[in-house]
Amino acid sequence: MSEVGNEPHSKAAMASKAVGISARVRTSPFFEATQRWGCKGYTTYNHMYLPLYYEGLEADFWRLVEHVTLWDVAVERQVEITGPDAARFTQMLTPRNLSTCAVGQCKYAPITDENGGLISDPVLLRLGENHFWLSLADSDVLLWAKGLAAGTGMNVNVGEPDVSPLQVQGPKSTDVMRDLFGPWIDELKYFWFRETDLDGIPLVVSRTGWSSERGYEIFLRDGARGDELWETVMAAGRPYEIGPGAPNQIRRIEGGLISYGADATLSENPFELGLDRLVDLDQEADFIGKAALKRIKAAGVDRRLVGVEIAGARLAVSNERFWPLVGHDPARFKITSAVYSPRLEKNIAMALVPVDLTAEGTRLHF
Amino acid sequence: MSEVGNEPHSKAAMASKAVGISARVRTSPFFEATQRWGCKGYTTYNHMYLPLYYEGLEADFWRLVEHVTLWDVAVERQVEITGPDAARFTQMLTPRNLSTCAVGQCKYAPITDENGGLISDPVLLRLGENHFWLSLADSDVLLWAKGLAAGTGMNVNVGEPDVSPLQVQGPKSTDVMRDLFGPWIDELKYFWFRETDLDGIPLVVSRTGWSSERGYEIFLRDGARGDELWETVMAAGRPYEIGPGAPNQIRRIEGGLISYGADATLSENPFELGLDRLVDLDQEADFIGKAALKRIKAAGVDRRLVGVEIAGARLAVSNERFWPLVGHDPARFKITSAVYSPRLEKNIAMALVPVDLTAEGTRLHF
Repeated sequence: MSEVGNEPHSKAAMASKAVGISARVRTSPFFEATQRWGCKGYTTYNHMYLPLYYEGLEADFWRLVEHVTLWDVAVERQVEITGPDAARFTQMLTPRNLSTCAVGQCKYAPITDENGGLISDPVLLRLGENHFWLSLADSDVLLWAKGLAAGTGMNVNVGEPDVSPLQVQGPKSTDVMRDLFGPWIDELKYFWFRETDLDGIPLVVSRTGWSSERGYEIFLRDGARGDELWETVMAAGRPYEIGPGAPNQIRRIEGGLISYGADATLSENPFELGLDRLVDLDQEADFIGKAALKRIKAAGVDRRLVGVEIAGARLAVSNERFWPLVGHDPARFKITSAVYSPRLEKNIAMALVPVDLTAEGTRLHF
Repeated sequence: MSEVGNEPHSKAAMASKAVGISARVRTSPFFEATQRWGCKGYTTYNHMYLPLYYEGLEADFWRLVEHVTLWDVAVERQVEITGPDAARFTQMLTPRNLSTCAVGQCKYAPITDENGGLISDPVLLRLGENHFWLSLADSDVLLWAKGLAAGTGMNVNVGEPDVSPLQVQGPKSTDVMRDLFGPWIDELKYFWFRETDLDGIPLVVSRTGWSSERGYEIFLRDGARGDELWETVMAAGRPYEIGPGAPNQIRRIEGGLISYGADATLSENPFELGLDRLVDLDQEADFIGKAALKRIKAAGVDRRLVGVEIAGARLAVSNERFWPLVGHDPARFKITSAVYSPRLEKNIAMALVPVDLTAEGTRLHF
C-alpha cells in the first residue's frame, strides 16, 4: 500500500438518508428475517434491498473475522444459461478461458463489452456441460446476455431462475456448515460446489464468498423457503457465536475485493483492475472484447487499481463520492472506496492511480 | 375504475429505512441542489439517487397540480444510438412503428424482449436521421442494446452520453418556460423537442413529462453546469410559485402512468399493459419480440393492468409490496401501485386483474 495525504473527507452529515421502501424495489426471501434480526440499514443492488449492517460496521467486522456471520445476498441474482450452445455462448461472455472449468466448479469470470470495459465480475458456476449460472454484481447482465443471444441467434435460453444466495462467512463457517450438511463439507474445495438439500429445501452449496475470510455460499432454489433456511442456519451456528452480517466494507477493502459500480465500471478494463491473470488472449474462442483487449495490452494501460493508506484523522464513514487525485483527470484517477480499519488502525482505500505512481511508499494527494 | 375490498394494508412501520449513501450509487449533477432545497427522501433508480419528496407527498402533489414544480430526474439515463445503421437498429428495439417519427419528435416506445416481455418503456427522441436517445426507466437498456449490437454486428455506436434531464411540470410550466426560452415555447407541440441553450448551457427542451400535468423536460448536456441550470429555472419560476418536486405517486397513479419495476417487468407484455396501440405487428420491420407478440395477440391475454379503487381506511403510505388478488396466482394477479389521493378522496391503485374481472363496478378481493 502507498501512503496518501488527505483533506478532511468526513462529511458525516451525508452518511445516510431516509429512503422510501416501495414495491418497485424487490425484497429478498430473507427480508423478513433480516428485519427480525435487527438490520439497521439497507442499500439497493440489482433492483433489490441489500442489508448493510446490524450491530454496526465495526461490530459486524469483528464478528466476521473472529466468529461467523450469515448474510442475505439474494441481490446476487443469477443469470442462468442453458441449451445446446450454452457452453460456447458462455465462453463468448468472458475473457477467462473456461475450457478447464469442470461441472461442479466455480470461476471468477469478468464479463467485458466490445471495448474491453467491465460489465460485471460474477462468480460463474458450471452445473452441467451446457448449464451455467452467473452470480452477479450490480448490473443487468441478464439484459446484456439476452441481447447478445437475440443478436447472434445462438441456441440458448437465458433467464433469471428462482435462486437466492446466502453467505456463511468467517473462520468458524466450516464448523457451522459441517454440522448442517455433514463431513463432505471438509472435502469441498475452494471454488467448487455441490447440489444438495436441507430438510428438503433444494440448494447449491459452494466454497466461495465476498469476505476474504473462509466461507461458503448457500444458493436457495425455492424462494418460498427463505425464512426457514435462515433460521435453520442460525440455529446451527449458535454454538459458534454466529450473527447476522452483510458484505463488510472494512474486510473487503482490506482484502482488495472489487465492488462493481465503485471500483470498476464499463469505463475500466481488466488490465487496469489487476485482473490480468483472468484474461486469456491466446485462447481459440472469440469472446466479446478480445480484439479491444489485445490492443489495450499491446499499448499498455496508464492507470491501475491499487490499495492505498490515507493519512490524517480517522474516517468517520466510508466515502460517499469519488475523491479525485489532485492534478489529474478526476473521472479516471480517484479514490474509489475508503474506510477506517479498526484492526489495521489505519484509513485504507482502493484507488485508480497513474502506473508511474504505484510504487510502494509513493505519496499521492487527493 | 373498479371498486376493491381491502384488508388493512397500512404497514406504516416499513415506510422508510436508513439507506447508506455510497460512491457505488451515483449522484446527479443536481444532487447538491436537491439537498439545498430540502429533499427529505430518496430512492435509487438506474444506479443513482432519485429524490422522492420535499415538503411531503401531498404538499408536493398540490404544488404540482396548482402551480409548477422542478424535478431532478437525471436518473432518466439516455441510451444514445448513432452510426449508419442507427435508424434500422432502433426500430429493431421497439414494436412501435418509427417510420413516421420525424427529427425533432419524441415517441413513447416500449422495448420488448424476444418473448414480448417489457424491458423498458422509454421516451425516444430522434435527434437526427441516424441519431436517437432513449430516455430510460429503471433497467440497464444500455446493456440490452449493446448486447444486441454486438450480436448482430450492425454498424451502430451505443453509449450513455453526458445528459441529465430535469422536468418542469404543472399548469404554470409554460409560463416559466416562456420566460426562460422565449415565445417559441408556445409553439412547441406535445412530444416534440428543440435543441437550444440557456446562458451557453447546452440543452434539449421537450414537451414531455411523467406527471399527467402540462409539462416540459430540459435535458442538460453538460453535467458540470447542473447547479447553475437548477437555480436559473428556480429563479424564473419564482413569480409562478415554483417549488422543488419529484415524480409524484399520487398524480401518476391518478393518470395511469406505468412505473417500470412495479406495474410492469419482463414478465408483462404490452397487450397486458394496455399499450396495444403502440404495437404495430403489420409493419415490415422485424423488431425483437414480433413473432411472440403475434402469438400472444392471436391467443389473447388473460390479464390486464387496470385502475382500481380500494375501499376501507385511508392508506397511510403507498404499497411497499405487491398485494395479491385472493384466489389467483399471486405472481400474476396483484395490486402493483397504490396510494391515497387527497383530491379524489379515495385510495387509488393499479392492478393486474383477470380480463373477465375488468368491467366497471366489479368487486375484487386483495
